[in-house]
Order: sequence, then C-alpha cells, then structure tokens
Amino acid sequence: MKTYKNPDKTSWDLLCKRPQLKSDDLTQLVQTVFTQVKKEGDKALIRFTEQFDRVKLTALKVTEDDLNSSVAFIPDNLKDAILTAKTNIEKFHKNQWQATEIIETSIGVKCWRENRAIEKVGIYIPGGSAPLFSTILMLGIPAKIAGCEEIVLCTPPNASGDIDPVIKYVAHLIGITQVFKVGGIQAIAAMTFGTELIPKVDKIFGPGNQYVTAAKQFALQYGVAIDLPAGPSEVLIIADQNANPVFVAADLLAQAEHGADSQSILLSNSLTLLEQVEEEIKKQIVSLSRKDILSKSLQNCRLIYFESLSTGFEFSNSYAPEHLILSIENFEKYLSIITNTGSVFLGAYTPESAGDYLSGTNHTLPTNGYARNYSGVSLDSFVKKITFQNISKEGLMNIGNKIEIMAATEQLTAHQMSVTYRLNYLKKNVNP
Amino acid sequence: MKTYKNPDKTSWDLLCKRPQLKSDDLTQLVQTVFTQVKKEGDKALIRFTEQFDRVKLTALKVTEDDLNSSVAFIPDNLKDAILTAKTNIEKFHKNQWQATEIIETSIGVKCWRENRAIEKVGIYIPGGSAPLFSTILMLGIPAKIAGCEEIVLCTPPNASGDIDPVIKYVAHLIGITQVFKVGGIQAIAAMTFGTELIPKVDKIFGPGNQYVTAAKQFALQYGVAIDLPAGPSEVLIIADQNANPVFVAADLLAQAEHGADSQSILLSNSLTLLEQVEEEIKKQIVSLSRKDILSKSLQNCRLIYFESLSTGFEFSNSYAPEHLILSIENFEKYLSIITNTGSVFLGAYTPESAGDYLSGTNHTLPTNGYARNYSGVSLDSFVKKITFQNISKEGLMNIGNKIEIMAATEQLTAHQMSVTYRLNYLKKNVNP
Repeated sequence: MKTYKNPDKTSWDLLCKRPQLKSDDLTQLVQTVFTQVKKEGDKALIRFTEQFDRVKLTALKVTEDDLNSSVAFIPDNLKDAILTAKTNIEKFHKNQWQATEIIETSIGVKCWRENRAIEKVGIYIPGGSAPLFSTILMLGIPAKIAGCEEIVLCTPPNASGDIDPVIKYVAHLIGITQVFKVGGIQAIAAMTFGTELIPKVDKIFGPGNQYVTAAKQFALQYGVAIDLPAGPSEVLIIADQNANPVFVAADLLAQAEHGADSQSILLSNSLTLLEQVEEEIKKQIVSLSRKDILSKSLQNCRLIYFESLSTGFEFSNSYAPEHLILSIENFEKYLSIITNTGSVFLGAYTPESAGDYLSGTNHTLPTNGYARNYSGVSLDSFVKKITFQNISKEGLMNIGNKIEIMAATEQLTAHQMSVTYRLNYLKKNVNP
Repeated sequence: MKTYKNPDKTSWDLLCKRPQLKSDDLTQLVQTVFTQVKKEGDKALIRFTEQFDRVKLTALKVTEDDLNSSVAFIPDNLKDAILTAKTNIEKFHKNQWQATEIIETSIGVKCWRENRAIEKVGIYIPGGSAPLFSTILMLGIPAKIAGCEEIVLCTPPNASGDIDPVIKYVAHLIGITQVFKVGGIQAIAAMTFGTELIPKVDKIFGPGNQYVTAAKQFALQYGVAIDLPAGPSEVLIIADQNANPVFVAADLLAQAEHGADSQSILLSNSLTLLEQVEEEIKKQIVSLSRKDILSKSLQNCRLIYFESLSTGFEFSNSYAPEHLILSIENFEKYLSIITNTGSVFLGAYTPESAGDYLSGTNHTLPTNGYARNYSGVSLDSFVKKITFQNISKEGLMNIGNKIEIMAATEQLTAHQMSVTYRLNYLKKNVNP
C-alpha cells in the first residue's frame, strides 16, 4: 500500500500502469499442445491431462446421470442463492435483447437488423482449490437466452479425476449438457479444432491462468473469437469523507484476494478517510483466508488523495477500471462524467460482490485498461446482428441513379452496372 | 468459374475455403515501422511517406481551409447522392441506440446499462486509383452519432502529395476535422502510439491492403482495438428459376471487381439459370473497366446447383458469406433459417451496391467466415455499454446472505466479508 497526495498529471500514466507478473513465453508450449490435439484429438487430451493435471482419466465427458444426480450434494441454502442469482441474471440479460425494427430510410428502401445466436460457444471454467461456479451462470445464462445451439463447458478435473458437484449442478440447472473434464491449453485447443468428443466452437469465453490466456490468444488465428483480452482483476473506489472505512477496506480486500497481480485503488478527497481505511485493512486482513495472495497484491494497492472529487473521476477515466465503486454522497451527479469502466457500484450498500454473484449484471468485464474500448460480456456477446434490406421497384428508381454516381466516382464500374441493368429493365417494363 | 452439381456434404469444407493470395511475412517490416514511428513521431511519418508513397510532404495535416474549400470541386449530382447516403446511414444507425432502462432484479436492487462513446477512434481510408469516400460515411457517421470526442482520419497522399477533394468533402460534411495525409503501416502506427500531430486512438477502423491489415493486427498488442478481422470481400447469391440472369451476373461481377482474391458464389436450384448467368457474365465483362482483376477473381467464382433451396441455405450458413443476396420468390419464408452472414439483400431490385453506398446499412462487414462469430460495424462498434447498480439497505438485507453463501462456496472470504460487515452494520443501525 502506498499513499499519494494530489499526484501531478504527468505522473498519472505511471500510476495507471497495471502490475505485471513475470510470465513465461508460452508460445512453444501452446503450439505443441495445439498441434497434438488437432492431430490426435481425445487421445492427446487424455495424455495432456495426465501430464499437466496428474490424473489419468478413463472418460472425458461428464455423463448426464452424473449431472442429474449432482443436486443431492448441494445444500439448500446454496441452491436457493444460486436460484436467485439465476433469476436476476436472466432478468437483466433478457432485457438486452434488441427487437427488430424496420426502418424505411428512403421511400421503398426498407432496412433492419435481426439477432442470430452464435451457434457454438465454449465456456472455460478454471480449476484450482475452489469451484468457480458463478462464471457458469454469467456465461451460460446469456448463451441460453441468445439461443446458442451448442454450449460446451470445459473445466480441469481435480486430483481424483472428478469435478466439483456444484459445477455439475449449475451446468445442469441452466441446461448445459456437454461438460468435459479437461482444462488448460488442451481444453482451448479442443474447442478450437474439435475432437471426437468435444465440438469445435465459434467463440470461447471464460477466465483462466496464463496458460489458458495464452491459448485463447493463440486460438484467434484459427478463426475462433474470444470474449475479451485478458488482464488481472482490479477495482477503483472513489470515497468521500462520509464513506464508511470498514466497507471501503473490505471492498479493497475483496478485490485483492483474487490474485497476486490484482489491483485495488482508492481515491478520496479526505486524508482522514485514507488513513482510516489503511488502518482497517490491517485489522480486517487478520481474519481472511488468502493471506499469501493478499500480502502480494496489497503491494499494488494505491491510496490517492485528490483535493477535488472531479479530478478523481478524471483519474478514474484515465485508469479505466474493471470495477468502479462510488462511496460518495450525491453520486448521481457524477454518473455522466464516467466514461471508461466496466461496471459501476453506487452507494454504501452496493458491494462489488453483489455484481460478482447475483445482482444480475455480468461479472466478465474488461480489465487492464480495456474498458476504454471494450464492453463487458452481455447478451450481445452471444449474438450477431445481421442487417437485411429490401428495395421495391419504386425504391430503386428513386435511389438508383445516386448509387450509380457514387460507384462511378469510386471507379467501380461493375457496381454501377448492377444498378444500371436494373434501371434499364424497369424503364422498359414498368409503367410510370 | 466452375460449376458443381449437388456437391456432397463431405466436399463443403473445401468449397467453403476462401481464395488465398500469397502474402509476404510482414512482421519484420511492421515491427520496424512501429518502432520508428513510436520513437520519432511525425519525422518518421514524413520519411516513410517518402519511402513508400514516393512523395515528400511538407505538411501531414490537411488544413481546415483545405477541407472547407473542397466543396467547390464536387459536382452537384454527387453532392446530392452523398447527402442522401448521409441521411439514410444516419437514420439507420441512430435507431441502433439502445435506451437506458433500469431493471429492479430483486427488491431494492436496481441494475442498468448506459452507453458511452469510445473517446478516440481512427478511420483508415486506403489510397489507390479511386477515392473510397463511401467508407468515410460508413465509419464517420456512426462515430459522430455515438459521440466519439476525437475522430482521426488517415489516408495516403497521391503522387502530388494531396488527397482527393471528395475525401476532404465527405470528411468536412460529417464534421471530421483531423485529416492526415499518411497511409500504410505508418498510419496505423501513428494512431496506435500518437505523434506530435496525430492523436493516439482507442480503436482503429477501416479496410486496407496487406500492409495495413498486418499493421492493424500488430497494433492489438498495444491495447488498441480494431473493427474486424480482415479478409477478402465476398458475395453468395441464392437464385431460383425466376431470377433475372442479367441482374445475377451483374451482382457476381460487382463483387468480383473488388480484388483478385474476391469471391462470388451462386447457388441455384435451376441448371438453366446457372448456364444463363455464365453466358451473361461473359457478355457483361466486355464493358467493364477492371478486366485484369476480374480475370483473376472470376477464377474463384463458383456456380453450384442444389436440387433443393433449403440445402442451398444450409451451404450458405456453412460458408457464412459477408453479403448474401436472395433472388428467389417468397424469400420471406427463408429468413429465419439464415444464421451466418453479414448483410442480406432481398429480391430482384436490391443490389448489393445499394448497401455499399446509400440504403443506410453499414458496408463494413465480417468476411472470411467471420460472419459465424462477428457482426458488421454498427453504432455498437463505437460505444461501450457500462453496467451500473445501486442497492438499497433493504435490498442488501434481502440478498446479502445469498452473496455470502456463494462467496463462501468459492472460498473467497474477503468477498463474503464485504457483505458481512455491511449486514452487521445494518442489523445494528437500521430499525426493522
């Protein structure tokens, strides 16, 4: 943690720089795994799972029975929470569907857009000590609303060759039937090329470690799309003198527990608050479970004093945080000046974790400054918008000559003639 | 041109393969230009323009006077056509703005999305023999509607160090003031890093040759976004026995004149029509200007007979064409089975060139099979959608415990505690 006072604008670039973990050059490894998965399919997946996950699988696919019966392992209060999350995420994402509206741009010229689901999507859920089932909700639910025909879920098996019941339960709950026990680079390769068991997909979603991230980037050259460029998670909080330091500290810590490269930033126009929050962090950290991660990521934590809140918002727009928490009075009056961020949390009783789990907004958001030029995942991420147009005879007689003139200016004679042949025909065959 | 009859599904993959021109490995060149532009700014731009475009510029920026006075060089009928295009493109794209709607997902939990323009966008317009001003309309108009603060236009100078008046006219007409005479890799590098004169942008749009394409791809690693992955232009036409072979041939040729790697495909359930169209192409080509290009690109032209139109649509979805023209009766009944394409043109009097120039739809569309997983450019391409949420005390008391349970299951204790501290406070301080 480091405190800065009224940092000069010349220092902002440096202050906006993200923490970077040393990452190995994985190109060679990714290339090898991709080549072998493409060539040998499931056989290669089994082999790489033994090599990287140290478990020898007999079956890659989770059976329907297994998905079905997972419900027995889920406590009622967790089931209840998951159902609320599902309902809220559905409500929020269903509302993002844009209805078709036909626009008559010129007389007889009708244009519109229609939504079509991306047919095949892949969802990657990382392994590790805890089952990250919330991301299945965040990616699977909009995929279902969009109407994606095929939803493939890949997640690495644990030491006993199985996956957590809650992963199975959530997949089953939202109707994902193709669940595979495969992780890492080999999972991304499988969804890129397809194997005997795993379908090739059009777009791959989901978080992952540096191997998965490198593999998703590599997959792009094979025509697959991905959800978002990768980067460590981050929060920026703007708080004033009335903010509760206990809540602010808790929110900074919640972000910091994600990983050693996570970043938490606090901006305030109150030095007292900055001091109180620093004290609170030291107090709260004692009772938390991920102290190892926290001790590293808190080194990236910045507490910045700005005399004016407006300057704070300017800094925030420069930083372009994945999550932006406003713990200030009259936050309404600042909303319009927020330009670059993934998701905004307003007021003292709106912790980021609400959006992470169940308020209904998506938790897959742009990191690493990409909030300048990317939106978070939404229903749009699973849909293509196709334009349609229909021009009547009258319509073409109306605009045809203008197309000819524009095409001629661009020296595209064949474009011009495609209209000329039609106009000549209409002149001969349509009574005025 | 080659004709296929009822090709077996096993051959579809091959038939859907795009023509590929030999392209050099440009990595080294792109790297060099980027490094020098980053280091030396405008000085490097002047030097590369002399080296690649063979013209020594004294000024990179087109002056406001120069933009203003361009109107004198534009014939009235062209001005009139451009104004119609502008009006139609504006109408169609303004309608794409999605209004903010607040959703109360649970009691006291309000979530919504707001649009924010991408602040700085760059538009690249290729040089060459003809001024491609239509792309300025297609990219500049939605950028203006979105409210992008800074719109930068780069286009290579001609042999006399100037750019075509119609480029200046259209830029001026839609309110683009930052127009620079710089093209190729150096233009993309300039918009990626910024120079003394040219602002760094957040997203780069626009078509280009293999140098520009390679540079746009390279720019991605510096945090810039781009409009779409690149590929040659293409059309797929589905026509039945009632289609007019003159129109169909003209549309195939219009596509084919774009470049040697362009592809035109015709599917029909009528062998007679296929033969008539082939004859017509030979007839029409005589009067066209780009015979060199056409003689090459027509080698990529495929005429495919399918007994059933439905199979034709299935093939089209596999091919995922940039442009899809339906010259069939009762096209309405097929619309819902179209899944993968950029833009659809319906009926005998809806030539693709209408959409290329002025019906109002965008002409920047996914090529090379990317219509499976990408939409064409629209207002959405210039906008980020930021999620907002505000939870009341009552709202958090309502959903708080569910967040705690989910966070605990994912073993994210600090996430859990960020809710617990708030609930504890509310229990003490809020009367039930």
